[in-house]
Amino acid sequence: MGGNSFGTLFTVTTFGESHGAALGCVVDGCPAGLPLGVEDIARELRRRRPGGGGASTTRMEADEPELLSGVFEGKTLGTPIAIMVRNTAQRSGDYDALRDVYRPGHGDWTWEAKYGFRDHRGGGRSSGRETLGRVAAGAVAKVFLGEYGIVIQAWTSSAGGIDVPGPEDPAFDLDEAEKNPLRIPHRLCAQLIMEKIAQLRGEGDSAGGTVSCLVTGMPPGLGEPVFGKLDARLGAALLSIGAVKAVEFGAGFSSAYAQGSMHNDQPIADHEERAYRLPPGVPALGFKTNRAGGILGGISTGMPLEFKVAFKPVPSVAKEQQTVDQGGSLRELVIQGRHDVCIVGRAIPVVEAMAALVLADGLLLNRGARLQA
Amino acid sequence: MGGNSFGTLFTVTTFGESHGAALGCVVDGCPAGLPLGVEDIARELRRRRPGGGGASTTRMEADEPELLSGVFEGKTLGTPIAIMVRNTAQRSGDYDALRDVYRPGHGDWTWEAKYGFRDHRGGGRSSGRETLGRVAAGAVAKVFLGEYGIVIQAWTSSAGGIDVPGPEDPAFDLDEAEKNPLRIPHRLCAQLIMEKIAQLRGEGDSAGGTVSCLVTGMPPGLGEPVFGKLDARLGAALLSIGAVKAVEFGAGFSSAYAQGSMHNDQPIADHEERAYRLPPGVPALGFKTNRAGGILGGISTGMPLEFKVAFKPVPSVAKEQQTVDQGGSLRELVIQGRHDVCIVGRAIPVVEAMAALVLADGLLLNRGARLQA
Amino acid sequence: MGGNSFGTLFTVTTFGESHGAALGCVVDGCPAGLPLGVEDIARELRRRRPGGGGASTTRMEADEPELLSGVFEGKTLGTPIAIMVRNTAQRSGDYDALRDVYRPGHGDWTWEAKYGFRDHRGGGRSSGRETLGRVAAGAVAKVFLGEYGIVIQAWTSSAGGIDVPGPEDPAFDLDEAEKNPLRIPHRLCAQLIMEKIAQLRGEGDSAGGTVSCLVTGMPPGLGEPVFGKLDARLGAALLSIGAVKAVEFGAGFSSAYAQGSMHNDQPIADHEERAYRLPPGVPALGFKTNRAGGILGGISTGMPLEFKVAFKPVPSVAKEQQTVDQGGSLRELVIQGRHDVCIVGRAIPVVEAMAALVLADGLLLNRGARLQA
Amino acid sequence: MGGNSFGTLFTVTTFGESHGAALGCVVDGCPAGLPLGVEDIARELRRRRPGGGGASTTRMEADEPELLSGVFEGKTLGTPIAIMVRNTAQRSGDYDALRDVYRPGHGDWTWEAKYGFRDHRGGGRSSGRETLGRVAAGAVAKVFLGEYGIVIQAWTSSAGGIDVPGPEDPAFDLDEAEKNPLRIPHRLCAQLIMEKIAQLRGEGDSAGGTVSCLVTGMPPGLGEPVFGKLDARLGAALLSIGAVKAVEFGAGFSSAYAQGSMHNDQPIADHEERAYRLPPGVPALGFKTNRAGGILGGISTGMPLEFKVAFKPVPSVAKEQQTVDQGGSLRELVIQGRHDVCIVGRAIPVVEAMAALVLADGLLLNRGARLQA
Repeated sequence: MGGNSFGTLFTVTTFGESHGAALGCVVDGCPAGLPLGVEDIARELRRRRPGGGGASTTRMEADEPELLSGVFEGKTLGTPIAIMVRNTAQRSGDYDALRDVYRPGHGDWTWEAKYGFRDHRGGGRSSGRETLGRVAAGAVAKVFLGEYGIVIQAWTSSAGGIDVPGPEDPAFDLDEAEKNPLRIPHRLCAQLIMEKIAQLRGEGDSAGGTVSCLVTGMPPGLGEPVFGKLDARLGAALLSIGAVKAVEFGAGFSSAYAQGSMHNDQPIADHEERAYRLPPGVPALGFKTNRAGGILGGISTGMPLEFKVAFKPVPSVAKEQQTVDQGGSLRELVIQGRHDVCIVGRAIPVVEAMAALVLADGLLLNRGARLQA
Repeated sequence: MGGNSFGTLFTVTTFGESHGAALGCVVDGCPAGLPLGVEDIARELRRRRPGGGGASTTRMEADEPELLSGVFEGKTLGTPIAIMVRNTAQRSGDYDALRDVYRPGHGDWTWEAKYGFRDHRGGGRSSGRETLGRVAAGAVAKVFLGEYGIVIQAWTSSAGGIDVPGPEDPAFDLDEAEKNPLRIPHRLCAQLIMEKIAQLRGEGDSAGGTVSCLVTGMPPGLGEPVFGKLDARLGAALLSIGAVKAVEFGAGFSSAYAQGSMHNDQPIADHEERAYRLPPGVPALGFKTNRAGGILGGISTGMPLEFKVAFKPVPSVAKEQQTVDQGGSLRELVIQGRHDVCIVGRAIPVVEAMAALVLADGLLLNRGARLQA
Repeated sequence: MGGNSFGTLFTVTTFGESHGAALGCVVDGCPAGLPLGVEDIARELRRRRPGGGGASTTRMEADEPELLSGVFEGKTLGTPIAIMVRNTAQRSGDYDALRDVYRPGHGDWTWEAKYGFRDHRGGGRSSGRETLGRVAAGAVAKVFLGEYGIVIQAWTSSAGGIDVPGPEDPAFDLDEAEKNPLRIPHRLCAQLIMEKIAQLRGEGDSAGGTVSCLVTGMPPGLGEPVFGKLDARLGAALLSIGAVKAVEFGAGFSSAYAQGSMHNDQPIADHEERAYRLPPGVPALGFKTNRAGGILGGISTGMPLEFKVAFKPVPSVAKEQQTVDQGGSLRELVIQGRHDVCIVGRAIPVVEAMAALVLADGLLLNRGARLQA
Repeated sequence: MGGNSFGTLFTVTTFGESHGAALGCVVDGCPAGLPLGVEDIARELRRRRPGGGGASTTRMEADEPELLSGVFEGKTLGTPIAIMVRNTAQRSGDYDALRDVYRPGHGDWTWEAKYGFRDHRGGGRSSGRETLGRVAAGAVAKVFLGEYGIVIQAWTSSAGGIDVPGPEDPAFDLDEAEKNPLRIPHRLCAQLIMEKIAQLRGEGDSAGGTVSCLVTGMPPGLGEPVFGKLDARLGAALLSIGAVKAVEFGAGFSSAYAQGSMHNDQPIADHEERAYRLPPGVPALGFKTNRAGGILGGISTGMPLEFKVAFKPVPSVAKEQQTVDQGGSLRELVIQGRHDVCIVGRAIPVVEAMAALVLADGLLLNRGARLQA
């Protein structure tokens, strides 16, 4: 399976270059009978479009998805769901100056070292526009997960060097996150960070940030032990997003500094009504804390999944940089074009999409765990 | 492909429970003609055996590998390489008390929630002994990578809450690492940390830690873009190791707090002699810094790979803990048996093995990148 | 991987229903640098369009492919190649009568038994139009194979109950095959068979047939032993074409009636100049005969590949049939609509496409066989 | 995935050379909770051992399987099931004369053309002994299928040029098949064929044959449309058996000569009690005939699966043959050693094993077809 497909049973293959004719995806393995419409996909794609407020590129694409196959009379057929988004606002000329020069922090040269040549227009396939296919596929996965009560929600937990307090803070408000372009769930922090972003834009610079994610409604039992652990598959999914340089689950890096007696989450009997059923003879169980981030031994515990990813700063800065050209000579480079200053706000639907794809796949894989499905 | 296989072309399938008859692996896809002997595997398995100094379990297994297939007259045949290690020092009786109780921090209950029942003896398949198969397979991958000059070296960069200075420190010494059981490349730190571990053992507690890894001799071009990015595959490999809760590449989480102008690694012309050849028309290139950790756009840059993983503390502590049993009742638990206090020293060959498997696979996958291999 | 993808390294995923918005494919893993244009694909698609002469459906679609991604400045980028063909001549109303009835010989009911419902319009995804995506992908594979001198050519070797003499017959002429709609490489037979087809059309009946295929320019060494044998992969590819009920290689079924001493192909020294190179120490070798059909031990011998497939008669006949409807009641059925009487002529590009996909994949997989690519 | 693994969810990886230390397999993805013992595997392995009556090799191996993992207290754990059989009766010296010569009809030279060298002892990995791992894995699959009432039974339908009448013949008796070494379900035919085999042995020659197979208790709905059709996966499985040159389903090649009106199987209402449940709204359905061999549109119909495979004659004949050696020179060859004259009797458990693996995988894949498992 090539590098452009993901998943074992609920699979997605994405295609498209930033300035080619179209981008999109084919979702294969989505069970039949799922209510699905083009609006389910369009809604998620709108969430990844550039927002206002100065953090984002000014390239404005409609990004209207077209549902080419796999749905009949409002329900999935069990056949491949192909979704296409046409590119319309290409200004390829913007990139002529970049044809023979390697932008720092981008994959321009590694791409050539691998393939011998590259599409230099907007990064070609290595562009952030590649995530359109992911978000479209993730939208399908989200609808599927919704049938089982699983909800994925990500937010900006740090940007421009400023940390945002977490759910334990009284001012933390996920509704707020969808109101500001950086998706910061905290009104005051949002203001501070937007100011910082504006300043960086003025300086021709850019910022990184972190995205945190919470998945509720998780059934226990998802994840395949050993190499197919749920955290391993989520890790692969998240690190496959361009610009992500780190990922952690639950207590993450801080767990390396903890002691076992204080780090273990204590199991407790669970008396709540649940949407899932356990195998006969297995008692319902919860945990007093969730330092494990909802995963033990690579298998979901039924507690919320919690993970965090780090995005490096956008490498396309307006400041002059030094680099090398195709002839091997030193070059001064000032990048033109329409670029984001901080990508994390727009990356949130991408993070959610990747998590959704892993979980949809995990749900289907789990159907094979026992003698009776 | 089930959760016990890893890799696309250079693949491994592992098998075995902690207290079953045997553990091992089958490596499929290793190219023919590679010089390989059982000692190549035995040497790596010895590295993951419990060391002295009080950090490790006192279960002592010979862990002598048997090479069942795939090698003829000292060279790989291109056929599956099966390697088996018999279990000999099982003391299953130690675990009778754990048959109907869920240990905190372990996958006991999640395993039952998934499969309906479990092998309670030493964690069964979720035991750390499962990594025997990984290390054996990784040993084969290391020999393969050695043919191309690629060298993987990991070390303990933090344990028991104490950080170890990195390669930039004059006292950093990788030879030292193989001399102490926790594989700390710094004599003074090793002493301090061993004292801390001894103290924790006395208290019936345990510690986490971090492992850092450096891969030198990297050719550029490894990694498949989009979902098959080199960091995504490494991330999956590393997060599939039990107890790993986080992974970062290059500047990792700190990159989320950086600005683009200062974070980008500056490309420079490369005039050194290299073991690999670039496609025609592509200039040789290096980088002034390596904040990217050797990967740009999911593809290796030719700079050393740098990554770090966090291990949570060993969950089996001697201190009394509260948990739930199979009947759903509260239980006081004191774990008996032979357990590690801090696993990171023994985890180092496992980290190296997983990296080796990803890179061996990446080397083979890369042969398909261009028209001419 | 879902049922709509094929291949390990050179992979294709197809999508689309007969009367949906579009059909197409995504080819992932095609090496970079291959000269490719939309005309390469259009040409093959024209070969599978309905021909004249009364054997084919009268549904006339332009079937103009659109190349959505993966090609830049006339060469493949190494990224997914997405190809789309819009449906334009749907007359879905033709199928209203079939909404609640199961056509004999079709997958209508099995589809419902599996998925719970189906797209009844023209068979939905189980329509022969699904092969559009295969032929488009196969066109890419053919261009790739062409770089290595590998040529695939299939023809109708039997139709309407009449066998066509093979290449040993002086009147056998592959140029002739492309001149008649059933692709019969023999002028006299073509005439006889077309008469038979006309007669069957008059009777409201249909015919089966066989397709034979020859692949020249084969290098030795393609095919992965054991489960990935070249014949096993070709067999899967060919049997995945709707209506194919049998496949044989070389002497095929007749070999079951032979004796070893007369069946073995005698190896002989090969002194011809070849496009491929053998590993050091391995002599060039040919065979006096080719009863093996070009494959020994699952690996190509370098002799031409020879195989034959059987197509059952088109199940949509105009004659009245008895069947069952969704209510479980007996129904008299007369199928309306535009149907082929004999599919084999149009199936030939599909057979070639599937063979091309297997061989392209085999070429890439073979790059991993030895230490040096 | 390397060429030595098979299956998507219920997977097997086999290993071992004919004269290496051991052969075996790892089955991954077998659901937890299945009652399984080593005797289930031993029984099937005994069925593939050489029989009496002169048709088989005189190499007598005990072929006692060892169950290394995956089973605890008599039930599968959901973890990999590793099974090993040691080689004990190697007489590698028998093969010294074959070290530098290519046997006609074997993969000796193709193996070298691919890998650069080979294990010449008994064909190494390309030996028929490789099927030990398949039969062991198939035994596990059979036990799994047994839970659902699916029964696979194959028999010799032709050998030594003599056809055996099918189930429609009153003298056809499957119990008889297990009583004679060639597994011929017809006493008189068995006698005739054994005489023919004895004669061929006397002449230093060998014979081919066909194996037919019937699978009863099939639920409808198995098989993934398009590339994953049930017949495509069975075809790949069967053609991956060494010496198989052809496969057909139901009416097979004869369907190419039929007319649609007479070939379609007529659907009829089904009023029998079944072990499986259909989706709501889908009526129970049977067929008056089974020319389709139990598969329509790549999906099982619920009728018995019927297929047939052709085995070429054993290539190792005692008669003198001409061939080429490693130096490229002509060589007269008389093959020594212990060889079968006709393999079909021993191939029957292999055919059954491959079918069992495909169906076990198909059962698990089918759990993902609809919203509710």
